[in-house]
Amino acid sequence: MFNNLPKKIQLTEVGPRDGFQNVKTFIPTGDKIAIIEGLIESGLTTLEITSFVSPKAIPQMADAAQICAAILGKYDGKINASALVPNLRGAQLAWDAGIREITCVVSVTAEHNKANVNRTHEESVQELVRMREALPDMNMRVDLATVFACPFVGWVKPEAVAAVTEKIAKTGIKKFVLCDTIGVATPDRVYNLTKFMKSTFPDFEFSLHLHDTRGVGMVNMMAGIMAGVDSFETSVGGLGGCPFAPGAAGNTPTEDVVNMLTDMGITSGVDLNRLLQVVALIKDNVDEPLNSHMAKAKIYDCFCPRQ
Amino acid sequence: MFNNLPKKIQLTEVGPRDGFQNVKTFIPTGDKIAIIEGLIESGLTTLEITSFVSPKAIPQMADAAQICAAILGKYDGKINASALVPNLRGAQLAWDAGIREITCVVSVTAEHNKANVNRTHEESVQELVRMREALPDMNMRVDLATVFACPFVGWVKPEAVAAVTEKIAKTGIKKFVLCDTIGVATPDRVYNLTKFMKSTFPDFEFSLHLHDTRGVGMVNMMAGIMAGVDSFETSVGGLGGCPFAPGAAGNTPTEDVVNMLTDMGITSGVDLNRLLQVVALIKDNVDEPLNSHMAKAKIYDCFCPRQ
Repeated sequence: MFNNLPKKIQLTEVGPRDGFQNVKTFIPTGDKIAIIEGLIESGLTTLEITSFVSPKAIPQMADAAQICAAILGKYDGKINASALVPNLRGAQLAWDAGIREITCVVSVTAEHNKANVNRTHEESVQELVRMREALPDMNMRVDLATVFACPFVGWVKPEAVAAVTEKIAKTGIKKFVLCDTIGVATPDRVYNLTKFMKSTFPDFEFSLHLHDTRGVGMVNMMAGIMAGVDSFETSVGGLGGCPFAPGAAGNTPTEDVVNMLTDMGITSGVDLNRLLQVVALIKDNVDEPLNSHMAKAKIYDCFCPRQ
Repeated sequence: MFNNLPKKIQLTEVGPRDGFQNVKTFIPTGDKIAIIEGLIESGLTTLEITSFVSPKAIPQMADAAQICAAILGKYDGKINASALVPNLRGAQLAWDAGIREITCVVSVTAEHNKANVNRTHEESVQELVRMREALPDMNMRVDLATVFACPFVGWVKPEAVAAVTEKIAKTGIKKFVLCDTIGVATPDRVYNLTKFMKSTFPDFEFSLHLHDTRGVGMVNMMAGIMAGVDSFETSVGGLGGCPFAPGAAGNTPTEDVVNMLTDMGITSGVDLNRLLQVVALIKDNVDEPLNSHMAKAKIYDCFCPRQ
């Protein structure tokens, strides 16, 4: 059962975007940069480092360009840094800041797409087309939100996920992230949807972004691994949510994931002890309690990862 | 993968014992009784309701006889109520209080057995023999502590678990709980040990008690289910730990488990909404933050458990 799992899992750290945009207090830019540097030094070299959104809508992300300047200036060519953008304007700002991969969010349900980006599906696809035409050299991936369930209309059928994916695929985008925006999926839903999407779109890349609102983040991730996914978005400290999805909270904590994978002999390239130092730094910067177990767990001297 | 899981899982609620003994403040007896009644009314009819231990060592359990009188007086014959006891004296007190199933703890590592019950393995087995002779009609199960790892000596080999089980089996006891006392196991360890123990002792009953110290409680439980276990100990609110194991903390929360199982179509007999009312009651009685996701999660109107 657990003997045939992949030996390597790609983690994309989304804490600096999904996390920082959801904390109530603004984290000073210098502290953000120190945290991102810590994440990179711990081995997390694929990161969503910020988002280029309206500072009126999400003031926590007003320093996106400064973050990019600092991080890309120091690590350019050594890391895969992406940013989330809601529209062409954000994509252009990201390009100007040196970003070469962007994430755009399209929700599978029309209702959440309207609440999140104030667009119909057709308008979302049109915006993606405009971005691809204006920035042909920008790499693009799409976060498919509410793939399991929507806070406004309830459970979502896999066929609906495929239909929206099909529309987006016409723009040429082949990289998708299946997002459990409000964290209500359970392992069989994750396994079945992932298998379905991989077989329906065999040429596309799928990764998973699993909120841990109900304590199922880790077991859902394992279901995804069993379904053949080897790429996951996680968030240091378990920070995260969605400002436009009532009840969305708590991401799957990178440090909990790294602890589990490391003990199972699955490489993520991350040094757990160094990562835990970054978690301690985040604890100092965030008022609310972290959705992280490793942040609180005793670290024993009598263990090495495997024996 | 997830289609062949059992349709029914037996949950043993250990919050009133494992949980209440580990909270820093003494919960008033009347509140404990109200919580236990709430748990029973929500459908948790198999419970470890208290422990008969030295009130000097664990003052939180000083009201064990009162708890038994209230709960057994109201629900006798309708529930499976057990109590944890450390020795013959505790077993006799439990019997006198109306308890007909006791749990005794034996740690697989000599070091933790010494710290926890101040006995060698031989002394533990002798005490079990004394109990069986003095109380031949008492049902007995053994919590095997530190089956994956020990806070004092590190990782534990499955052969060591089998050796201790073999010694205990000579007393006639056939019901065992494999306990991850400090919550450091990962899914493959749980799967492999469980398979090994079930094949080594095919006539014995094994259930799992998985601490959630590192966020792996739910995924470890799923690994146990996949290995053929259909009986688990969980704790309402995620309360729990071990007073004599440094770093032991946080049990797998019953409400998180019930939410996952219910959504997966696996029956536990528990009404999640009623259980969440009990969780709210515990929140009012416990100063420390709960290791529970469902205690904080938004409950949506737009979902029914399955569609």
